[in-house]
Amino acid sequence: MDTTTPSYDALTRTFTRLHHLGHLQAIAMWDQAANMPPAGNEARTAAMAEMSALLHRLITDPQLRSDLDAAEAEPLDEPRRANLREMRRHWRQSNALPESLVQRSVIATSRCEHAWRTQRPANDWAGLLPNLREVVALAREEAQALSQQTGLSRYDALVDRFEPGMTAAQIDAVFGELRRWLPGLIRRVTERQSRESVLQPVGPFPVAAQRALCERVMRLLGFDFDAGRLDVSAHPFCGGVPEDVRMTTRFRDDEFLGSLMGTIHETGHGRYEQNLPRDWLGQPLSEARSMAIHESQSLSFEMQLGCHPGFVAQLAPLLQQAFGAQPALEPANLQRLLTRVKPGLIRVDADEVTYPAHIVLRYEIERPLIEGDIEVDDIPALWDAKMAELLQLDTRGNFKDGPMQDVHWPSGLFGYFPCYSLGAMYAAQWFAAMRRAVPDLDARIAGGDIAPVFDWLRRHIWQAGSRWATDELATRASGEVLNPAHFKAHLESRYR
Amino acid sequence: MDTTTPSYDALTRTFTRLHHLGHLQAIAMWDQAANMPPAGNEARTAAMAEMSALLHRLITDPQLRSDLDAAEAEPLDEPRRANLREMRRHWRQSNALPESLVQRSVIATSRCEHAWRTQRPANDWAGLLPNLREVVALAREEAQALSQQTGLSRYDALVDRFEPGMTAAQIDAVFGELRRWLPGLIRRVTERQSRESVLQPVGPFPVAAQRALCERVMRLLGFDFDAGRLDVSAHPFCGGVPEDVRMTTRFRDDEFLGSLMGTIHETGHGRYEQNLPRDWLGQPLSEARSMAIHESQSLSFEMQLGCHPGFVAQLAPLLQQAFGAQPALEPANLQRLLTRVKPGLIRVDADEVTYPAHIVLRYEIERPLIEGDIEVDDIPALWDAKMAELLQLDTRGNFKDGPMQDVHWPSGLFGYFPCYSLGAMYAAQWFAAMRRAVPDLDARIAGGDIAPVFDWLRRHIWQAGSRWATDELATRASGEVLNPAHFKAHLESRYR
Repeated sequence: MDTTTPSYDALTRTFTRLHHLGHLQAIAMWDQAANMPPAGNEARTAAMAEMSALLHRLITDPQLRSDLDAAEAEPLDEPRRANLREMRRHWRQSNALPESLVQRSVIATSRCEHAWRTQRPANDWAGLLPNLREVVALAREEAQALSQQTGLSRYDALVDRFEPGMTAAQIDAVFGELRRWLPGLIRRVTERQSRESVLQPVGPFPVAAQRALCERVMRLLGFDFDAGRLDVSAHPFCGGVPEDVRMTTRFRDDEFLGSLMGTIHETGHGRYEQNLPRDWLGQPLSEARSMAIHESQSLSFEMQLGCHPGFVAQLAPLLQQAFGAQPALEPANLQRLLTRVKPGLIRVDADEVTYPAHIVLRYEIERPLIEGDIEVDDIPALWDAKMAELLQLDTRGNFKDGPMQDVHWPSGLFGYFPCYSLGAMYAAQWFAAMRRAVPDLDARIAGGDIAPVFDWLRRHIWQAGSRWATDELATRASGEVLNPAHFKAHLESRYR
Repeated sequence: MDTTTPSYDALTRTFTRLHHLGHLQAIAMWDQAANMPPAGNEARTAAMAEMSALLHRLITDPQLRSDLDAAEAEPLDEPRRANLREMRRHWRQSNALPESLVQRSVIATSRCEHAWRTQRPANDWAGLLPNLREVVALAREEAQALSQQTGLSRYDALVDRFEPGMTAAQIDAVFGELRRWLPGLIRRVTERQSRESVLQPVGPFPVAAQRALCERVMRLLGFDFDAGRLDVSAHPFCGGVPEDVRMTTRFRDDEFLGSLMGTIHETGHGRYEQNLPRDWLGQPLSEARSMAIHESQSLSFEMQLGCHPGFVAQLAPLLQQAFGAQPALEPANLQRLLTRVKPGLIRVDADEVTYPAHIVLRYEIERPLIEGDIEVDDIPALWDAKMAELLQLDTRGNFKDGPMQDVHWPSGLFGYFPCYSLGAMYAAQWFAAMRRAVPDLDARIAGGDIAPVFDWLRRHIWQAGSRWATDELATRASGEVLNPAHFKAHLESRYR
């Protein structure tokens, strides 16, 4: 019997090349946000577009199709077969899109996003409209092309790029259920909290002290600074490559909690990347499973652990060392600050309880938009109605804090928003599983022993990479596929 | 008559692609030195090697040969013809080397340089030997291949990569002359200076103040911070791309002059890059002419202008603002500090007068080494003899401050060293020409008007890019080809 796997081996070499070249792209993207002087933007954009085209050309090389087919017949063990499955997924998504569509999309989204940066502060919805119509038209074309290739519906085909296997039918079920209990919970919590007194920390909070605090907390959370950095950018993110993770945050000297909790959030992304299966680096198997799973890591860090009263009690003395003691930085007050629920206009500023309402709203707009049931011009009225319904807020005429607030749509990211709330649900599910595995988990966290959290995540999520489809990953980790009841139970327990 | 230029146009598209992809390589290289955490090195090296191979493959594509030949027959105006000449030069150099040799060189130099970083501080010449022998063997292979392609001698073929058109015969003439008058000058100056009293500045010099000072001086020298940055790395350099220049320096808090003058030096490189012909960006015509011309810019900034008494008088108050007033920072003392001549072991620490001796020594060793007249094992004895002869210093047994001090040889850069002193000579020649064009130049510099220096350099050097061969560039700029008499006159005037 022939035990050689020449086609599979050829594929691994191709994906290793893609990984190496993608490394340069990832570092350039981080640099663009963290370092690049303004006049460098045009050349950088051109360089990255050239690289995108090159990577697209490499993965659409006809040789790959025959290698993928031939490799199916080769004697591969289970992880190699999983790797082959993921290779085909990447290949299928890239090959569904003709190069001309990729290029038109790059140009349209780049133009729309660039103009959005000045149109948003000017509340200029009319100015955004023509660009956004073009971006939506191209996203629909992409959805159509991906749909033909995958057999999925158009919106599902876009979701599948970020969250393989997830469908609008599942999201409908999950978000439909959420819609039933979330408004009542928000009402009860805000009502109860209105009788609570919370002290606001008094600044200024020197940026150097904030940076040192963030780095200290990152070390506490196990971030490996030999294989990563923390820098500053206008919009915090976690970029770079698994071997060299580039996290960013932003500082203002009158407020520090946003920066600190944002850093804790990105540290969750960072540790996932730093702990993906190292033996498989460069192969699709070693990549993060999906965007919802990625978000489940950042929210495990920020929300499940970061706002856990036992962890907050350990955070408090670090804050007092950084900024001096003050009553607002006592553990109990800090806990109240971190769990304060208040409906607001801006998604990224939302608390854990109202956040899903923002996601449900976006999902209920972007799905019919992609499917052609509504048009870009219909967005503001829908936005106003849903904000009034879900959060009792009036957004009429306020485009900049309404449908213009996020970069996602101007940059063509449709199908991404659901991942945020799915991630919050998975995070709650992981912690429920963790508590079954480590019954004294809360006591250990309160006692300063947070290692069990990382041990569990490493074993069940990080080290799995993309070896299993998401449902199997979730079942192996927690005994069941996505079960939003854990998220509901988490919120009801923390905010009861 | 056919006025279309399809082959030339195809070539410009290829070179624009190379420029875009090279952009990512340049930023990754800067990042490696300025930001990268240690554990990121392996992945970065692999990514950059992959990109090097890709760029080599693009420029050795057989299509280029026919495009180059066909373009020769197309109706091109003078700058396009010059661009075509430079395209062919790039193409010829890349195509002279088989990909296997390029890859073996990358591996051997990377291994040698990596080991050198720990062998040098350990003074471990014996440890370096096997790696360096391999690097030299491959450099000889490269020299042989380039020699066959160009018809140049082997050493000349290596020099030609950095300094097109320069030959060992010319270097022999120039350095031979230098050898006759330099030792006498060094003796006279050190003898005279031994009777001078010079105050050393008293530190500490806070790094934040040094950084602010360096940035202030860079602005004074016209560096465009909208299109570049200053950062910190172990070995200062000027990298990035013309649209986004990445300069680095290093700071220690007990000494600031090294960092400041190093920054002024790199600013010369930076302004050259920032002012290359913008309309031709991406094309070989827009690139810096050569390494000696590049060095002539950094030395125009550091030595010609930076140590000019009129400029030093303007620098002094900035230093006093940065670090507080002290007698050592008075203009006259500062001038003495900056022109202090003292034979020393280390090239990069050498003053303007003894520096050429270091270069002559390296040239007299690397040339016969490449030509096979001596072997790696012969280097230490030659080094000792030449240091004793040229600078009256004993280097026996001190490899780390001897032949192991520079990264050039371990990283396979043979034929580069002469460019440093040729650059110093060109810089003196430029200032002589400038003084003819602007007779009151010294008075204007002393009066704080340094714009004429930049105007002259912009018009005669920066904006020319690679439009003319070096001899023509020099003749157009200064009325003559390289004439080392200006360097001698400069040193004799400043150090008389």
